[in-house]
Amino acid sequence: MASNQFGDVLALTTFGESHGPAIGGVIDGFPAGFCPDLQAVQEALELRRPGRTGWVSPRREPDHVEWLSGLLEGVTTGAPIAFLIRNHDARPEAYQDLNRLWRPGHAQWAYQAKYGIVESSGGGRSSARETAVRVVAGALAQQWLLTQGVRIGARLAQVGEIRAPSVAWAALRDAQVDQAEALWQQVAQDPIFCSHQQSSTRIQEFLGQLMREGDSIGAIVEGWIVGAPAGWGDPLARKLDAELAAICLSLPACKGFEVGEGFGAACMRGSQHNDLFACDAEGEVAPASNRAGGLLGGITTGMPVLFRAAFKPTSSIRKEQTTCTREGVPCRMSTGPEGRHDPCVGIRAVPIVVACTAWVVANAAMRNRLARAERA
Amino acid sequence: MASNQFGDVLALTTFGESHGPAIGGVIDGFPAGFCPDLQAVQEALELRRPGRTGWVSPRREPDHVEWLSGLLEGVTTGAPIAFLIRNHDARPEAYQDLNRLWRPGHAQWAYQAKYGIVESSGGGRSSARETAVRVVAGALAQQWLLTQGVRIGARLAQVGEIRAPSVAWAALRDAQVDQAEALWQQVAQDPIFCSHQQSSTRIQEFLGQLMREGDSIGAIVEGWIVGAPAGWGDPLARKLDAELAAICLSLPACKGFEVGEGFGAACMRGSQHNDLFACDAEGEVAPASNRAGGLLGGITTGMPVLFRAAFKPTSSIRKEQTTCTREGVPCRMSTGPEGRHDPCVGIRAVPIVVACTAWVVANAAMRNRLARAERA
Amino acid sequence: MASNQFGDVLALTTFGESHGPAIGGVIDGFPAGFCPDLQAVQEALELRRPGRTGWVSPRREPDHVEWLSGLLEGVTTGAPIAFLIRNHDARPEAYQDLNRLWRPGHAQWAYQAKYGIVESSGGGRSSARETAVRVVAGALAQQWLLTQGVRIGARLAQVGEIRAPSVAWAALRDAQVDQAEALWQQVAQDPIFCSHQQSSTRIQEFLGQLMREGDSIGAIVEGWIVGAPAGWGDPLARKLDAELAAICLSLPACKGFEVGEGFGAACMRGSQHNDLFACDAEGEVAPASNRAGGLLGGITTGMPVLFRAAFKPTSSIRKEQTTCTREGVPCRMSTGPEGRHDPCVGIRAVPIVVACTAWVVANAAMRNRLARAERA
Amino acid sequence: MASNQFGDVLALTTFGESHGPAIGGVIDGFPAGFCPDLQAVQEALELRRPGRTGWVSPRREPDHVEWLSGLLEGVTTGAPIAFLIRNHDARPEAYQDLNRLWRPGHAQWAYQAKYGIVESSGGGRSSARETAVRVVAGALAQQWLLTQGVRIGARLAQVGEIRAPSVAWAALRDAQVDQAEALWQQVAQDPIFCSHQQSSTRIQEFLGQLMREGDSIGAIVEGWIVGAPAGWGDPLARKLDAELAAICLSLPACKGFEVGEGFGAACMRGSQHNDLFACDAEGEVAPASNRAGGLLGGITTGMPVLFRAAFKPTSSIRKEQTTCTREGVPCRMSTGPEGRHDPCVGIRAVPIVVACTAWVVANAAMRNRLARAERA
Repeated sequence: MASNQFGDVLALTTFGESHGPAIGGVIDGFPAGFCPDLQAVQEALELRRPGRTGWVSPRREPDHVEWLSGLLEGVTTGAPIAFLIRNHDARPEAYQDLNRLWRPGHAQWAYQAKYGIVESSGGGRSSARETAVRVVAGALAQQWLLTQGVRIGARLAQVGEIRAPSVAWAALRDAQVDQAEALWQQVAQDPIFCSHQQSSTRIQEFLGQLMREGDSIGAIVEGWIVGAPAGWGDPLARKLDAELAAICLSLPACKGFEVGEGFGAACMRGSQHNDLFACDAEGEVAPASNRAGGLLGGITTGMPVLFRAAFKPTSSIRKEQTTCTREGVPCRMSTGPEGRHDPCVGIRAVPIVVACTAWVVANAAMRNRLARAERA
Repeated sequence: MASNQFGDVLALTTFGESHGPAIGGVIDGFPAGFCPDLQAVQEALELRRPGRTGWVSPRREPDHVEWLSGLLEGVTTGAPIAFLIRNHDARPEAYQDLNRLWRPGHAQWAYQAKYGIVESSGGGRSSARETAVRVVAGALAQQWLLTQGVRIGARLAQVGEIRAPSVAWAALRDAQVDQAEALWQQVAQDPIFCSHQQSSTRIQEFLGQLMREGDSIGAIVEGWIVGAPAGWGDPLARKLDAELAAICLSLPACKGFEVGEGFGAACMRGSQHNDLFACDAEGEVAPASNRAGGLLGGITTGMPVLFRAAFKPTSSIRKEQTTCTREGVPCRMSTGPEGRHDPCVGIRAVPIVVACTAWVVANAAMRNRLARAERA
Repeated sequence: MASNQFGDVLALTTFGESHGPAIGGVIDGFPAGFCPDLQAVQEALELRRPGRTGWVSPRREPDHVEWLSGLLEGVTTGAPIAFLIRNHDARPEAYQDLNRLWRPGHAQWAYQAKYGIVESSGGGRSSARETAVRVVAGALAQQWLLTQGVRIGARLAQVGEIRAPSVAWAALRDAQVDQAEALWQQVAQDPIFCSHQQSSTRIQEFLGQLMREGDSIGAIVEGWIVGAPAGWGDPLARKLDAELAAICLSLPACKGFEVGEGFGAACMRGSQHNDLFACDAEGEVAPASNRAGGLLGGITTGMPVLFRAAFKPTSSIRKEQTTCTREGVPCRMSTGPEGRHDPCVGIRAVPIVVACTAWVVANAAMRNRLARAERA
Repeated sequence: MASNQFGDVLALTTFGESHGPAIGGVIDGFPAGFCPDLQAVQEALELRRPGRTGWVSPRREPDHVEWLSGLLEGVTTGAPIAFLIRNHDARPEAYQDLNRLWRPGHAQWAYQAKYGIVESSGGGRSSARETAVRVVAGALAQQWLLTQGVRIGARLAQVGEIRAPSVAWAALRDAQVDQAEALWQQVAQDPIFCSHQQSSTRIQEFLGQLMREGDSIGAIVEGWIVGAPAGWGDPLARKLDAELAAICLSLPACKGFEVGEGFGAACMRGSQHNDLFACDAEGEVAPASNRAGGLLGGITTGMPVLFRAAFKPTSSIRKEQTTCTREGVPCRMSTGPEGRHDPCVGIRAVPIVVACTAWVVANAAMRNRLARAERA
């Protein structure tokens, strides 16, 4: 059953294994007449690239996108947009020893149960490498969304017990796209995608200590959608928050999603949580606060959509762990010093969450063209 | 765009408004040759029925299911199973005054922005009434899952600051279906679906106080899947946790979802979080703990799948709130004493989460028949 | 697997058996803000109603549509539109004897092989009764298409060897919606939906003779789409002709589909078949003829879309036939004098083909809103 | 909107333009544990390769398949199977002059109306080049179907007025897979895929004459499915004949589809057309003839599925034709002597129809695993 497709009106199918010849994707349904900035797509990809800083996997991949179809003299034609990223630093042999063991926290064991096949080295499809493809598609979506006045962003909000302070505009009624753009640029320049310099420094110190210990740590990523008009998203099965939750949970290591007050809402009273409606300066009615996180009934209210995703600590650690071989013999293992793993997958998750969100939102925006009998 | 369909291999389309003549559903793809216990479906529906206890909406609905198709002498034929639940206590007129106002926390405002139509009274499609349809479909799915040895359950785990203690078997490697069945029966008998009697009493006292104050409260519902073999669920876009997250977030008032350690994983180290593989008594390798919540890479490990969903406090409260009329005139409002609303939507969410989970899991189980070139 | 859904952006799910309590449908995705003429829907249904003339099944069904959801004060809200048609003249007992036999040309035998269930009496889902639901949905689609200037029509073009002459406007470059409307009104008034009075008389004489003989006859239905602008339909898997072919072949008894010159094109040369491009009076380039049948690459050219569907003779005949009982005992059978069957299913196929075509075209029209990055 | 995807349980997405860098596809949902013969896939592709004989386009393409993912040591893993075919003989410049004109019978004009973009040279997506991708996927499907005892085949049955005689086994009750295999091998060796040597010779003489005249001719391709058990295919919207019709009509130049007696059934009586049920030697009931073409209600009966597809004459001809430039200036044109076009697209359509049929049938076979509550 097809399980590698994201979106419906905009349908991205991803393919490729971590240590195969290439990964890539096909976008079916991208509308015609758009002129993407392919250099900017490459730059978006650069943000999630392994080896970008000391805090992420040292695997060296140039991650160059080869565009195969769907563009004519730089303009989208309505035909499927296919693209490839060749794997250059794939080293299946480096995993040969590891492949004899069941690696704790990894998906191979479950894939084996499902398919009867021991997945290829380095995680195969379950590897975070697949997300590079989503970053490419998400960058195209974000570019198109900018023409609609929409800016997606995210930041590393928490690592272990260290929390970065809230973003000030989060609760504002009228977050501006300009503000969102500036904030994202600032985040993108931080080595760990943290929006607050002191927190970033503290987190990096902590990560350094973890790396020396050969351990890893979980994290929370906060995402936002700024500039979307009221009315995007669909009811029930296609609520925008349901689709955001699904795409976040589809990412490796993601264990939770919340929107607005999220789990905190469990401790709130209705009289505290309700966003009261009021008239703004132009006499238009809108919610006066944003505890709902920019959505009512799964549909945008015109305020920033605010959500958070929790990521577990990286499963591959240098610290010694007990496990079994594939034959069932107990043994000890360690992802050795050459192991190419991030101490905190939440860092690289930031640009990935941005891309996935952009994909979901662009899809919802296109779908909104179908809402009314008469075209707006 | 179609947004009322849940599942793919098993596709449930729901229809009907809160205060229209009827709600109902069509199940397309239910396999042939199954003999459902329709009385038990009716009983499952009874658990979420408004008016069941003092803690839920006093709306009086017999919620009788009329079966329209897909069954021949009590056996499924492979044809679509359609069913209706007539609305008996629909009182659109009771909402006439309310409909002149924008009700805080309700979806009508967003629906209006999307469709240009003021939704029908009582919430229309965004009302929790729609979930009765899902309970019917979920009950069929749960019955079929029992033939596969799988039991779904849920409980009210937290209301405001009051937390019920953890379920003991949650961390066990070999939760038995019998245990899960017994636990569910115990939960189902509690007026607020709490698994722990003292907590239940405390919460009910708290709810009584809230009702006197005319206020409401949020909650957390914990769900489980026991007995699923390793290998259910699909990779990437169809991870079982992604599908569970999406269907939970598709419920009214749901603001968050987490699986396994969830948001708590953000504070954990890899060496703490990893479930180490070990050999069991029969020499089979399996994870020795279950911090992952029964899933690796979105695919079941054979251990209980454990997840939690956060629900915001009921938006309709008797306490006075400020809002605006549809014409933009500021005003004050209160959902009066006859307002038929729950002090805590999390209570009725329990059987609804069970039903939605059963739907998702049955769908994944059927889909698993497609995983291998040779049929098992 | 879901197999009762027609369309994607506009998704119609049909349900109900021929001799169950009701048939019906749910339309998911119908756009908001449209005010359908429900009386006209009822009239469209009247055209396919059994018992309408002596030439179609005498089963007496008022075929009254009960609307269950999706309309608020007569206007579509964007919510799913559900509707029911109760079966009044279902007589499962009349089929009890027949059900012991395998009826030649009927689908029960294949359904039994697939589902292991002997379908309900009177054909169950494979009965033409299901098409009443499609007529309802198609009537809504046609009404919306009229707001876009599009008129669908069809006629009985051939019964046995008797062919009605071609419709004069078929080859014209600028078939007008007015002409198409007038033609359809004329067809709708003919008892057998033939556009040519003399042919109609001859066919009816022939049908009278067949009924006396207890036999049936095949037919060809010709359909048209007038007024669609150039650009509707999609490439490759969603070519408009592919979708028309699929929905025609999904009808009971349909055995063939062709568009434009169809099978006749096999005998033509490129120099004969090509429609040459020329400038019209306004200086716009368009094909100067229409052998392609209004489509190039599956996309409309702005000219009438012209297609034909072949229907086999009704399988249920009064003439005695040999068959076997379900236990495998050879026997003889006859659909007795009370058998409620049409001598020529092609007659009632006419309004059904119109409805199915309208559904496909409305779906393609909505989908076309997604073709370009900037909204037209 | 996604329009490049074929199948659902097995989902093939194709991409690439005729004169871009590459064409290719992604198969999402191919089951795990199958070991395809990739050399045989290459050979299947060879059969449709341009330049294979004098009767097809002289474009020189090695059409080498590069496998990118989804295979581990030659075995399918359940992951998406992606593959590329590089375009070597793409000559966009050769089409530069042609691109200034609207070419009669070509889809560019319609694509321009839809997308506002003048498609790339050589037809872009509407070119028959896309079908090479389907041949690759279809070859995999056919290989898997052989493990289920199913053989797909097709032949050139008619070119212009020249008809090859019927295949003798077509009407037989028990066509053997061996016979079907032998017939397909014989067809595959004929330069024009005709099953009858004398007809092949006559057709080739005719084609030679047409090429001298610079003209083209239409054709009819006959396809068959042998060995499928009773019960494949689904009701209504997913009838196997509806899906075969849709995929045939999705091919360039296809203008018609019929199954069994097809359009001929319009002239038959019920007493002639009905296949009577009888007991076979083993006492099993089955239809005693096969006028239905192996399907009842869209579901296989266990007899050969027989269908025909009509193809229009190649639109690109050397003969001079009138048309207009893109600016609307009338002019004359000819696809010059170097034009790389087939005199009869029906020839190369034969292996393409085989591949498309295999895809549809494998999809239906997989889907059949979902039909019953208990696994067979």
